[in-house]
Amino acid sequence: MALKNDLILRAAQGIAVERPPVWLMRQAGRVLPEYRATRAKAGSFLNLLKTPDLASEVTVQPVDILHVDAAILFSDILVIPEAMGLPYQMDEGKGPVFPQTVRDLSGLQNLTTDVTESLQYVLSTVRQTKERLNDRVPLIGFAGAPWTVFCYMTEGKGSKTFSTPRSMIHGAPELAKALLEKITEATCTYIDLQISNGCNMIQLFDSWAGILGPDTYAEFSLPYLRKICEHIRKVPVTVFALGASFAMEKLAELPCATLGIDWHTSPQYARKMVGDKMTLQGNLDPAVLYGSHSHVEQKTREMVESFGVQRYIANLGHGLYPDIDPGKVITFVETLHKFDAL
Amino acid sequence: MALKNDLILRAAQGIAVERPPVWLMRQAGRVLPEYRATRAKAGSFLNLLKTPDLASEVTVQPVDILHVDAAILFSDILVIPEAMGLPYQMDEGKGPVFPQTVRDLSGLQNLTTDVTESLQYVLSTVRQTKERLNDRVPLIGFAGAPWTVFCYMTEGKGSKTFSTPRSMIHGAPELAKALLEKITEATCTYIDLQISNGCNMIQLFDSWAGILGPDTYAEFSLPYLRKICEHIRKVPVTVFALGASFAMEKLAELPCATLGIDWHTSPQYARKMVGDKMTLQGNLDPAVLYGSHSHVEQKTREMVESFGVQRYIANLGHGLYPDIDPGKVITFVETLHKFDAL
Repeated sequence: MALKNDLILRAAQGIAVERPPVWLMRQAGRVLPEYRATRAKAGSFLNLLKTPDLASEVTVQPVDILHVDAAILFSDILVIPEAMGLPYQMDEGKGPVFPQTVRDLSGLQNLTTDVTESLQYVLSTVRQTKERLNDRVPLIGFAGAPWTVFCYMTEGKGSKTFSTPRSMIHGAPELAKALLEKITEATCTYIDLQISNGCNMIQLFDSWAGILGPDTYAEFSLPYLRKICEHIRKVPVTVFALGASFAMEKLAELPCATLGIDWHTSPQYARKMVGDKMTLQGNLDPAVLYGSHSHVEQKTREMVESFGVQRYIANLGHGLYPDIDPGKVITFVETLHKFDAL
Repeated sequence: MALKNDLILRAAQGIAVERPPVWLMRQAGRVLPEYRATRAKAGSFLNLLKTPDLASEVTVQPVDILHVDAAILFSDILVIPEAMGLPYQMDEGKGPVFPQTVRDLSGLQNLTTDVTESLQYVLSTVRQTKERLNDRVPLIGFAGAPWTVFCYMTEGKGSKTFSTPRSMIHGAPELAKALLEKITEATCTYIDLQISNGCNMIQLFDSWAGILGPDTYAEFSLPYLRKICEHIRKVPVTVFALGASFAMEKLAELPCATLGIDWHTSPQYARKMVGDKMTLQGNLDPAVLYGSHSHVEQKTREMVESFGVQRYIANLGHGLYPDIDPGKVITFVETLHKFDAL
C-alpha cells in the first residue's frame, strides 16, 4: 500500500525531501499527442470525462510520459454544478455553457446537495486510476472553489467581466451567500468520496479569484475555502487562487497544507507571507516553455532557488498551454529531477 | 484661458483641493443613451472615432450629463498601431482584429514611427473638444502603454493568454525590445501632438500589464513607460496598469504625477507604496454600481476615506460597464461632489 514515490506528500507535510517534487496543471491535456488520441476515441470532452476507462488512461499518461511525481484526476470543476442540477455543454473553442443558471431564490431551491449518486462515474475513474498507478505516485483529486463554481452557475459561461455574479454580491448578497453555502456542502461531500476512493491529496481551484478585490474576496470566497479546508482532515489540501496576489496575506491564514502561487506573485513575496508554516506550489510562467531548452532550464533553476527546496512543490503558475512542445515540458521536469537538495 | 474647474490638475500636482475630483474610465460610452445615439449616427465605432465632430461630441457628453471634473478624449489605444502601418477592424462584440501582425524582423522594419500625418483626425477632435469645453474642465489625452500596444500588434486580437507576445519575450527578446522601442517613439510623438493641440493631462493605459509577472513586467513594460514619462514635461501624467498590483512598488518609482489603481489593490496598500510623493487615482469596483444607490454611496465614501482626500482623484478601478444604470453613475459622482475636505 505504501507509495513508491511519496515526495509530494512529504513536501506538503513539511517533511524533508531529496529534491523538489514536480507536477504540472493540465499535464493530462492537449499538449500530449497520446492525450489527443484518447480524446479522439472518446469523441468529445464530456464523453472522455464520463468514461472512466478513458479518463483514467489520460490521468496516468503524464506519469508514464513526463515522469511527473503525481497524477491529477482528469475531471472538471463543473461536475459539481451538474450534479447539483445544472447540466452543461462544452463547445469546442467556446468553453462551458449552462442552458439554465441560478438567478433567484427558486433557482437556488431547485438545487440538490445530494450529489453522491450522480458522481459515481468520477469515483470509478478514481478507482481505475489507482489500479493503473499501482502505487507508483500519489493521485491528486480536486474541486472548484465555491466562488469559482458560483461564477459559472450564475453567469452560465465564461466571461470577461462576470457581471452576473458580481452584480449579485453587490445587489443580493444574502442570496449569493446561500448559494455559496450550498455549493460548499456539495463540494465537501464530493471531496470525501474522492478521498475514500483513493485520492491522496486534494487541490481546490479558485480560478476566478482574480475578478474580486481584497474585501469581496474576504467576504465571498475565503470563508467557504476555509470551511472545506477545515472539513478535510485525512489528506493534505492545496488552495490555488489564480490572480489573487492581493489576498496572499489572508490565504496564508487558511488551514491548508499548501498554497498554489501563480506567476504574478514573486516567490520571495509568497515565502515572506507564509514563512515555513505552509508549503508553496508553483509558479513558472507557462510562457517560459515557449523559450529554448536552456531558457526553460535556467528559469526553472532560478524558480527553485527563489522558493527554496524544502516546503516546496514545483509546478507552473497556471495550466500548461496546449501549443507547448512536450519536449520543453520534459526539460522542465528533468531540471527538477536533477535538482539536488544537498 | 484659465480653467474654471482645475481640481483634477491641482490634485495631480499635490496642491490642496476642497473635495476629490472625479471622472470615470469609459464615461464617454455605451452607458449613456446620448452616446448610443451619436454612435448610431456614426454607423460604426471606427467611424465615430474618425469623425472629429462626433468624437468631440461624445467626449463632452459626460461633462454635461454626469458633471464629472474632466473630459477624456474619445479615441482608442489602437490608433497608434494603425498609424504605424497596421490597420485594424472593430467587429461588434468581438473586439479589434488586425489582419496583419508583426512576427519577425521584416514585419518590424515595415513599420513607420512618422505618425503625425495619419493622426491628424485625432488632433482635430482634440481642438473641437477644447472649443466645446470652453475651459470648463480639463481634457485628458491618452495612449496605450507600449507593452499593451505590443500585445495587439503581435497577437492581432484580444486573447485569454496572449501566447504570441509572451512567446516572443521568451523566445525572441531582442526582437520584442526593438518593437517596444519603436512603439515608444511613435507614442511620444503622438502625445506631444495631443498636448500641443490642447490636452491638459495624459493617461497611459497598460491594459495587459496583468499577463506578465514581476520580472517580465520590469523588463518589458516599465522601461518604456519610464521613457514616455520622462519625455512628457508639460502636463501631469497618469499611469494605469491593470492587474499589476504585483508591480506596485516599481510603478511607484516612475516619474509620473499619478498612479491609477485597479480594484484588486487595496487603497491602504497603494498609499503605503507611494506615500505622498504621488497622487492615486481609483479604484471602486465597477460592479459596486450594480448595487443600490445607498450601497454606491457607502462604498464611495469608504473609498475616499481609505485613500484620503488630498493627493487623490476619484475614479472606478476599471472602465464603466455598459449595462450600468446611469443613475448610479450620477450617485457616484454626486457623492464625491458632496465630499468636503474640511
